Amino acid sequence: MRIDGELCDRIDARDRGLLYGDGLFETIAVENGEPLLWDRHLERLSDGCRRLGLPAPDADRLQRDAAAEIAQDSSGVLKIIVTRGPGGRGYRPPATPVPTRILAFHPVPEHPASCWRDGIKARMCHIRLGENPALAGLKHLNRLEQVLARAEWTHPGVAEGLMRSASGNLVEGVMSNLFLVEGSQLATPDLTRCGVAGVMRQMVLDLAAELGIPCRVTDVPLQRLQQADALFLTNSLIGIWPVRQVDGLPYAIDRIPVRLRELIALHALVPPSVLF
Amino acid sequence: MRIDGELCDRIDARDRGLLYGDGLFETIAVENGEPLLWDRHLERLSDGCRRLGLPAPDADRLQRDAAAEIAQDSSGVLKIIVTRGPGGRGYRPPATPVPTRILAFHPVPEHPASCWRDGIKARMCHIRLGENPALAGLKHLNRLEQVLARAEWTHPGVAEGLMRSASGNLVEGVMSNLFLVEGSQLATPDLTRCGVAGVMRQMVLDLAAELGIPCRVTDVPLQRLQQADALFLTNSLIGIWPVRQVDGLPYAIDRIPVRLRELIALHALVPPSVLF
Repeated sequence: MRIDGELCDRIDARDRGLLYGDGLFETIAVENGEPLLWDRHLERLSDGCRRLGLPAPDADRLQRDAAAEIAQDSSGVLKIIVTRGPGGRGYRPPATPVPTRILAFHPVPEHPASCWRDGIKARMCHIRLGENPALAGLKHLNRLEQVLARAEWTHPGVAEGLMRSASGNLVEGVMSNLFLVEGSQLATPDLTRCGVAGVMRQMVLDLAAELGIPCRVTDVPLQRLQQADALFLTNSLIGIWPVRQVDGLPYAIDRIPVRLRELIALHALVPPSVLF
Repeated sequence: MRIDGELCDRIDARDRGLLYGDGLFETIAVENGEPLLWDRHLERLSDGCRRLGLPAPDADRLQRDAAAEIAQDSSGVLKIIVTRGPGGRGYRPPATPVPTRILAFHPVPEHPASCWRDGIKARMCHIRLGENPALAGLKHLNRLEQVLARAEWTHPGVAEGLMRSASGNLVEGVMSNLFLVEGSQLATPDLTRCGVAGVMRQMVLDLAAELGIPCRVTDVPLQRLQQADALFLTNSLIGIWPVRQVDGLPYAIDRIPVRLRELIALHALVPPSVLF
């Protein structure tokens, strides 16, 4: 782990990242030493910094930190945290914050190949996502909703939980974004009131456009989810996981465009045994 | 600063308090070495731990930490943070978390005596509070809404911002709870969907009951705020601050029950020059 460029694993307990969750993070797949979708992650991070009024970390510096932190030619997960840095007591942000940047390299998460091939089982979470347009889309450090959602189940056969907004619309998975296959079209929840705008979600939107697959960004009430032909989940590590069941309701995996799955797999940590 | 009982000011950067804001805090007034409303703060902390599924810290241990941290016979602010402790990557809480407890003693905040005597100017914040019953009332570490609210103004003449919920009702101040004086009665916003249930707010509710002043916990739309005879703000450090103006709209300070102000002042850090 590297904090502000130095090998270190402890931070100032006055850091506003701890005091208030005043910061952002990125979770980046690394394949053979190469961070995947690096530019997209950096762009989202600097967008987030702008929205929180934080000076964005220097891109070259982050790249140097990343190169130093990633074990040579290895694959894994690079997590970057940027906070507003240390501060006094009180919510008021310092006029000239000195952000803290933390980079940590983790092993590739172990998921069976069946997650990609046969799809996963998901469940509907009870806890809802509060709606706040000022924070919606951001991958910020205020993640208690996700923590409580993930604490709702321990069954190892359930790989992900789906989350609804306070208004009742489907928004995302606890650690992923959600797509619906409706006939020959895709749909994904609008994230202007809550949710995390995933880098892989955007990648799917961009690739779908290239492949000529229409994709609507829209509100997704529960009924629409239940009537979809297929569902899939995305994030920067897994790429695409088909959903084969939500609380017992089955979905048809073969309705997910195979070409999209193949292309996305090139940008994620997919086991070599997975073939489409 | 004391972390898990040891004099120390750095924490493990894998602490879930930093990663997800997965924890709670208390801000306690200390007068001549004595933490005020200690039992109430500890009770709220352990309620919060229960709601987040965290083992509550041992009360004797916290008391020992506090006694060691508070400079002898001094006055100031004791901040206690309790997090779910270090964890791996991923939202899922560890089955047997080892909470981190952080205690830090700060000087008495400097506010002019006029804040108590003549009241303060407040403004209406633009950013709203997202609604989530699962988190409402908790003094948890997910405080980006307050950070962004407090960043909305820098004018030193404005002492506090008022915050509305996503539905548009008044909820609280950025760092305080809100009370309305309506004739001979009080009202304070319902906090079942958002907001922090302050220890001093509860103290005011209890004392009002003892003094025979009716106080309703209710929804407060903007119009109701504007029609109130008087407003006041509460927190554990200031006790009660009358509001003399919100965005230019004046309020009558003398409509706030003086006896309530006097009694609350005994439990807060009120400068000796303030007389009622």
